[in-house]
Parts: sequence; structure tokens; C-alpha cells
Amino acid sequence: MTMTAEIRVGIVGYGNVGRGVEAAIACNPDMKLAAVFTRRDPAALKIKTPGVAVYPEGQAERHVDELDVVILCGGSATDLPDQGPRFAALFNTVDSYDTHAKIPDYFRTLDKAARYANKTCVISTGWDPGLFSLLRVIEEAVLPSGKGYTFWGPGVSQGHSDAARRVQGVVDARQYTIPIEGAMEKVRSGLAPELTTREKHLRDCYVVAAGDADLERIRTEIVTMPNYYADYDTKVAFVSEAEMVGKHAEMPHGGFVIRSGNTGHGHRHIVEFSLKLDSNPEFTGNVLAAYARAVCRLNREGQRGAKTVFDIPASYLSMKSPEALLKDYL
Amino acid sequence: MTMTAEIRVGIVGYGNVGRGVEAAIACNPDMKLAAVFTRRDPAALKIKTPGVAVYPEGQAERHVDELDVVILCGGSATDLPDQGPRFAALFNTVDSYDTHAKIPDYFRTLDKAARYANKTCVISTGWDPGLFSLLRVIEEAVLPSGKGYTFWGPGVSQGHSDAARRVQGVVDARQYTIPIEGAMEKVRSGLAPELTTREKHLRDCYVVAAGDADLERIRTEIVTMPNYYADYDTKVAFVSEAEMVGKHAEMPHGGFVIRSGNTGHGHRHIVEFSLKLDSNPEFTGNVLAAYARAVCRLNREGQRGAKTVFDIPASYLSMKSPEALLKDYL
Repeated sequence: MTMTAEIRVGIVGYGNVGRGVEAAIACNPDMKLAAVFTRRDPAALKIKTPGVAVYPEGQAERHVDELDVVILCGGSATDLPDQGPRFAALFNTVDSYDTHAKIPDYFRTLDKAARYANKTCVISTGWDPGLFSLLRVIEEAVLPSGKGYTFWGPGVSQGHSDAARRVQGVVDARQYTIPIEGAMEKVRSGLAPELTTREKHLRDCYVVAAGDADLERIRTEIVTMPNYYADYDTKVAFVSEAEMVGKHAEMPHGGFVIRSGNTGHGHRHIVEFSLKLDSNPEFTGNVLAAYARAVCRLNREGQRGAKTVFDIPASYLSMKSPEALLKDYL
Repeated sequence: MTMTAEIRVGIVGYGNVGRGVEAAIACNPDMKLAAVFTRRDPAALKIKTPGVAVYPEGQAERHVDELDVVILCGGSATDLPDQGPRFAALFNTVDSYDTHAKIPDYFRTLDKAARYANKTCVISTGWDPGLFSLLRVIEEAVLPSGKGYTFWGPGVSQGHSDAARRVQGVVDARQYTIPIEGAMEKVRSGLAPELTTREKHLRDCYVVAAGDADLERIRTEIVTMPNYYADYDTKVAFVSEAEMVGKHAEMPHGGFVIRSGNTGHGHRHIVEFSLKLDSNPEFTGNVLAAYARAVCRLNREGQRGAKTVFDIPASYLSMKSPEALLKDYL
């Protein structure tokens, strides 16, 4: 077996996910963090890993020879629609684009950019979209006559926390999405229930209110907020700033992809995949790192353009050789 | 989108797994059962599905144009070492070869046979080896700094039941493998325990003894049997033939692939995949059917030789088009 060189990884954006990817690279001995691209002043950015170059995000084309793959750690609303095609035209890339309705368009745009540049990219990976998507497809394929469910949490939803923070008189807010145990048990029992939004998840809000705020108005505005809260049973608890910092600073998350189905002679089967994560961004970083490995291998083999988790064999994610997988993992 | 023709599936061996595959094909509208190969007298074999041809196993070469893929449903000890290379030289094949120590050799033998014939085969699939193997690799890839565990059961182990049946004075026996809940909880708590064989599983035996048999001797012979029982805490219960038939005729099984690990800043993550199956052979049949679909697609695309679950993207297992997966499953 030949020793392959370390995979030189670049990160675009040094926020929660960027730092999660940095932590993940430290767990993957075949990778090294080689550069961080930022829109901030590079000189002002303190990178935890020693010796990592920091470049202005707009000058990425100067560094194409320094990196094997770039992981785009920005958000789907405004960062990735701009960064995705731009970086895919320069590097192999991995991202976690999650604006579901626009994924097919985003795929086509990046596919075109990457093919033109002889590069390869994996879009929309992480854990959902990503691992959960993969498991939804696998579970359905091996149990076609059945019904699939995804439950999220318990965990912090950034989007719902932000929405609560926009209510007047709210100083800070943290929202936990809680899957409803009874609904999951119904699914696991093979009953294949029809579940409403309200029956699947609870929303649990911790709110720091301004000193003079009307707490009842805040509560009402949160629990009746359309799109975010109105369709759920929502609990609002008011806490002090100290309690918010002390008890709600972490970003745990997780969830469940469950499918129940039957085969020919009335036999029931349950397939379940679950995650329980202390840190959403750090685990997401690990998944992105595994797909960064895959995208380098695909590109070396001449497979160009945009890919998703559905297109990539598990062996491409692994540090192990095909021989080792055959011998030790089957 | 073009309408593709139904996948014409052949089954080799009409035992439990063969009938499980037959039941699975009924759940997959893009497949039809076209032929069964048997070593028994074809005229004596009653196939549940109407209109299925039954052929002598030794005359398979006469029917190469009638089938797109053949699923080998025999055992690993004596059937597959003979049937695997023979059928891989004639058809695309799928099997569930599970003699772990010999998998690399079996892979090479079938790879050679299939390549020579421009065919494609998937070896060692089902749920373990198969889905569990796949999940071991995925879980490790996305959580490299951690520790993985596989627990089996609760479910009937055919091998252990057979072993108990060979004890003198035993008329019939059924063995359930039971994962130890406390051990699983330790794993799920992220403690990454070192677990002995005895700490992971119990063995629960139901035995019908001959009328004049010495029950204490039977119990002792079972619980001290090397390889099968000596390393486990084994419970033996004596039951009547009626109870055996009434309560222990089914073949449930299942298990758990759990990995716990940490990322950079001391955060713990748990990834878990589990199966709860009313019928081991019927679920196995479903998995084999999904890989039969994959092997046909791989062959159409010109990918020849032997493959494992590690080599095959999830999209190849699915009935859905790549466009539908991109739009609805990410």
C-alpha cells in the first residue's frame, strides 16, 4: 500500500461550523487544515490551529494550488448561493446547503461550474441534509412497503432561537426542539401513524426578557408566531442572563430517522437511525470532513461535477483501504 | 424519463431466504420473480408466486438470457463456495456469504469469474454482513475518534439452535440471542466501555427433551458447549413440543450498531443504527432485492466484477430517479 499525502483542506468562513470543521480535521490523521478564507480582516482572525494561512475570501483564486478541497461553512440564505459556484469553479468543494426548495437549482449551478473547471463538489451534506437523507433513502430501499419518519432533537434550533429573539422585549432566547416520545413509540410499534406537525415535536423556549417587558405579551407573541411556533405546542420559560449563559450556551442536537414496514406474510420490521450530539457544529464538521475525503478521491478518479450523499459509496468516506474494509468490516 | 423494463430476478435455493426474497420481490414493483433454481426435483417444488419457471440448479447456463440478476439464497458453509463462482460466471448475482475469515478469498474468486463473463456481483449483503457493515463504516467515517459496537438480537440464531439440537436427548431447540440492555446503555452514555463477550449478550434456549432424557445433563452440556455457549450466560428452559410450535416458530431478529465518540472540545456524540425484525429471512430478502437492483444498474453502466455494500452508492439501491432523490430526499 502506498502512503498518500495528507489532504490539504481549506475552510471558508470561521464561524461555528468552520470551527467545527477545524476540530474535526484534528480527528482525521490523513487531513490537515491548510487555509482559512474569511470576509473579515485576515490579520484579526485568531485561528486555533497553529500555522494556518488566513486569506481574504475574495482572493481564493490565488491559492488554487495550495488546497485539495475547500469546505464551505457559510449559511444557505446568502453565503452559499454566492460562494458555492465561485469556489466550485476553483476547488473541489463540500457544503451543507439546506434550502430544500432550491437544492435542484443549486445542484445544477454547481455541477456546471465544477465540470467546467474539472472539479468535483458534494452539496448539501452534514447530518440533515446529509446522513439523515442517506438513511431515508437506504431505509426506503430495503423496506419499500412501509412509511418513513424523521424526528429532530432534542436540540437547539438556531432559526427558531433567532425568531424568538426578534420579539420586542426579548434580550436573548434559546429554542429546543423536542421530539415527542409518544409519537416515536407509535412509529416504533409499527402502527404507521399519520402524525400532524404538533404531534411530532414540542418547542421549548428559554427567554431573557428586558426588565420592563410584558412577559405575557412576549409569551403570546412567541407561541402564536406563524411558521415558527403556531403549529406546535410551545413552552416559554423566562430565565436570567446568568442562567442563559450557564445552562444554554451549548449547541446539542440530534434526531431519528425511523421507518416501519411489512413484508409479504404480515411481518413487521423497524429500521432506525439516530444521532445524539453534544455539539451540532462539531459533528457537522466531522461529516463534512468525511465527504471532503470522498470528493478528493472522486476527483482523482476523474468523476467531475456535483454529487450528493446519494452518489457516494461508503468506502470513499473511510480512511481505511478497500482491502481493510473487506477484511475487517463486513 | 423512460420507462425501464421490469428486472427479471432468479432465485437459487427455495428455503427460508429464498422464500423471503420472493416475498420481497412482491414489495418491489420494478421487479418480477422469473425463475427458481433448485437441486430438488423441479416438478415437486411448489412456488407461491404463479407462473414462475422452476429449473434444475445444474442447468442454469441454459437460461442466461431469461434473467437480469440471480439471488443466491444458499448457505455459506457448502452452497455458496460452489454456487457463487458458478453463477457469477453466467449472471449478475447477489449473495449473503458470511464466513468472515474467507470473505477476501471469496471476493477474489467471484471478482475473477464475473469479470471474465462481463458480469457484476454483490457479495456478503443482507443485514449482517450487509447493512450493519455499511453502518459500521459510515459511523466510523463520520466519528473517527470513537469506538464502535455491534449488538445482535433479540432474535433467533439458527447456528446456536442447531448446536443445541445436536445434544443427545434434545428433540428440538430454539436459541434467542439477547443483547444486554445495561451494556447498551453504557455504550449509549458515551463511556466507551471494554465489554467481554459475556457482558454483551445472553443466550436463551428453549428445549424439547426426549421423555427419558436427563434434563440436568442436557442443561450442562448446552451451557458449557465451547464456541457456542461457554462464553455466555445461558438460560435453558424445557418446553413441550406444542409450546415450541406455538410460541417459537417465528424467526425474529435484529440488532444495533452503535458508535460513541468525541470531537475536539470534549463533546460527546452517539450514532446508532438498529433493526427490529419480525422475520429475519424476509427482511434479508428485501435487502438482497435492493442490491439486486443495484447490481443490474452497475452492470448496465459497465462496472464489472465483485462489489460489496461499501462500493455502492445509495441511489443505486432506490427505485426513485436521481432527480426525485435530489428533490425529495435531501
